Amino acid sequence: MEVTAEVTGPLAAFVAGCRWSDLPEAVRKEAKRSLVNVVATSFAGCNEPAIVKAIAGLRPFGAAGNASVIGRAERLDALGAAFVNAMSANVFDFDDTHPATIIHPTAPVAPALFAYAETYGLSGEDLLLGFALGAEALCRIGNAVSPGHYRRGWHITSTCGVFGAAVATGKVLKLDQQQLVWAIGNAAVQTGGLVETLGTMTKSISVGNAARNGMLSALLARDGFSGPARPLEGERGFLRIATDAPKLEAVCDGLGERWELLTNTYKPYPCGVVLNPVIEACLALAADERLAVAEIAGIEITGHPLLRERTDRPGVRSGREAQVSAQHAVAVSLARAKAGLPEFSDAAVADPALRALGSKVAFKDDDSYAVDAARVSIRLRTGATLEKFVEHAYGGPARPMADADLETKLRQLAEYGGVRRELAPLIDALWSLERAADVAAVMALARSDAASRP
Amino acid sequence: MEVTAEVTGPLAAFVAGCRWSDLPEAVRKEAKRSLVNVVATSFAGCNEPAIVKAIAGLRPFGAAGNASVIGRAERLDALGAAFVNAMSANVFDFDDTHPATIIHPTAPVAPALFAYAETYGLSGEDLLLGFALGAEALCRIGNAVSPGHYRRGWHITSTCGVFGAAVATGKVLKLDQQQLVWAIGNAAVQTGGLVETLGTMTKSISVGNAARNGMLSALLARDGFSGPARPLEGERGFLRIATDAPKLEAVCDGLGERWELLTNTYKPYPCGVVLNPVIEACLALAADERLAVAEIAGIEITGHPLLRERTDRPGVRSGREAQVSAQHAVAVSLARAKAGLPEFSDAAVADPALRALGSKVAFKDDDSYAVDAARVSIRLRTGATLEKFVEHAYGGPARPMADADLETKLRQLAEYGGVRRELAPLIDALWSLERAADVAAVMALARSDAASRP
Repeated sequence: MEVTAEVTGPLAAFVAGCRWSDLPEAVRKEAKRSLVNVVATSFAGCNEPAIVKAIAGLRPFGAAGNASVIGRAERLDALGAAFVNAMSANVFDFDDTHPATIIHPTAPVAPALFAYAETYGLSGEDLLLGFALGAEALCRIGNAVSPGHYRRGWHITSTCGVFGAAVATGKVLKLDQQQLVWAIGNAAVQTGGLVETLGTMTKSISVGNAARNGMLSALLARDGFSGPARPLEGERGFLRIATDAPKLEAVCDGLGERWELLTNTYKPYPCGVVLNPVIEACLALAADERLAVAEIAGIEITGHPLLRERTDRPGVRSGREAQVSAQHAVAVSLARAKAGLPEFSDAAVADPALRALGSKVAFKDDDSYAVDAARVSIRLRTGATLEKFVEHAYGGPARPMADADLETKLRQLAEYGGVRRELAPLIDALWSLERAADVAAVMALARSDAASRP
Repeated sequence: MEVTAEVTGPLAAFVAGCRWSDLPEAVRKEAKRSLVNVVATSFAGCNEPAIVKAIAGLRPFGAAGNASVIGRAERLDALGAAFVNAMSANVFDFDDTHPATIIHPTAPVAPALFAYAETYGLSGEDLLLGFALGAEALCRIGNAVSPGHYRRGWHITSTCGVFGAAVATGKVLKLDQQQLVWAIGNAAVQTGGLVETLGTMTKSISVGNAARNGMLSALLARDGFSGPARPLEGERGFLRIATDAPKLEAVCDGLGERWELLTNTYKPYPCGVVLNPVIEACLALAADERLAVAEIAGIEITGHPLLRERTDRPGVRSGREAQVSAQHAVAVSLARAKAGLPEFSDAAVADPALRALGSKVAFKDDDSYAVDAARVSIRLRTGATLEKFVEHAYGGPARPMADADLETKLRQLAEYGGVRRELAPLIDALWSLERAADVAAVMALARSDAASRP
């Protein structure tokens, strides 16, 4: 096995040396879009049982702190807030997706920086720079262990997320190269997370840990808490044990020239991304006045084989399962002409009419389809056929979500999460974050007063 | 792949149902021996830089708490104390060894219970029962993923340790079977730790996390924080992704009949266990009045090939490396007739006379040797040969350390760690722990007053 390639050192040197002025405008913008989206999904999740239980469970062990829980009134110590905000950001898997790895890059990274900002003070510019570098490190480490790592069963957002939080926090701490190597090493021993736990509360623990432990990794490294020289590429380093076929060069090739963050995508629907084109097609068909749902005899969906492999899931029993069920997604978007979180709730799943409609779905594999394409063909009892083809799903790399739609998502998810406060100041502050002298003031706009909770 | 075997459920049922009266006397005794040993090694480590830095680093984020840091004056919140005490217990790898897996079983498990006891109250009997069950779960899960898991590069004490702490804490919380399954699932997403980090401070983070996160896993499970039904044996459960060839049956076969804790061993020297017979032989030779170190022409050590593979390490540069260097171990034990922590310090390694002596060591592989056997043969310049054969090293499964030697180890390591307090009351309390109404009173005997520190 090749053991001479250097990975951690060069990555750390790049992070240590990168300045705000080195960050292309498009990267700065994408960083802000990622933050708008993560605040949106944190609003959606902030009232979920997993988050409420985590706050209550950690409270006896945490210091009094200044760090906000997005969408809630509690304030926690920095590590606790990083943990909880990462959980709520990702609890519905409605957060962003790095297409090459299926990593949700912002949930493990941004909450560490938010908590840091409210505890130690941080400008918007420094936060955005730290975020961009943390997300970059996370996605590149993810690239290096993909696709084997996730396929083996590791929840890659969690296992690689801790590196993102460590690098991001390390950058805002202004760590030097050696300290960043230590921070990455400290993160490398905190890489838990299992695909087996998807759809359960337990999944959120590892996502929360990624943010918390990454932050702690950098704080300890600042204080001289030292580790091995090559935690990623060493003979028993993370990259080599995370997968049988690591691509070490993926970590550093083109650093500063090619930004993974520019490939980040945001979901219009709270579902597995392979369902995006299917739902988009169904919503278009639902708007067609020729369609009467009661008259549907059969529904055929054509797509890349991955669509069937990941989403052929009839008879789901929970909202979480419904998020990766084509049967449910098709039925609910046709019948209700909507595909938001309420449409993927436990209550929606319990509707027998949707089950009946979903049972009419048949898959047709077509290798010639890209994963962001799908065709939905509906046969009516009259014999007529209605059909919709989506070549590139909205929200995917080819048709990124518009800024305005990210704002709408934030407003809708605040409502879903029961966060009642004026949102315009928050949205404005996020879009102009690089001009914020103190991010703590922005975070204050994302809190909810206890009194205003539903 | 076999996916029907049930593992987590039966393990949880056994743990939930096991009572103090079900625990054989030998298991109760071994549990106490494990605790004496872990307090000893915690004393040794409590003043190490990694521990001091961890306490300082965590302090701003932790609540005021009652939980002791063994050998020190600070008191922390329960999660923080569990973290720190597990670190110090294992920082020198001088803690116990489960021979079948090379797991150090007590460091991740006991600190969670100590912290629990001081926070919520716990009798000695309940602590010992929780400890025995936690250590059992840990070692059995370790058996199920050995030897592939450690060989791949996972630090098995950390990765499997979190299950031990979760089960132990779950037992003292009196969780039912379902809650224990959730606790094990919550632990299953917190399985970090890399062999790559051995010999660095970073290693201690994952050991600390095992105790802390295992404890948190059980506390969350008590509050209904739920997870998958089969976190260990599921298609993408821990056992299946931890190694290519899991032995699922190893987790539950003979539960309650065969106790892994009874195979636990304690180190007489702060070194890799394969060095035990070598050091024992060298200490015997050092006591031989015919030996003059200056007259040594050559040293041959004969043993199982594993001895050479793990310890042929000339020219080491730190005490940590010296712990797995036959060259250093042979030299120092011959030259100084001692083999304690001072003999495996950075200072000892810097002694050029020891380097020169170590350079005279030659290995001879002999497959017929057991791993706990070794022969050391010294050729003098006079032509004479001195030789010592150790068939079964002291401290190994065949010749367990005596209780009195564990006491001596505790006293010596307290001195090494600079813990100045009367130790007899602590030793007595540990040997009679099952009669303690409140373990907090025992832990008070393991603290050091700030004033008494060196």
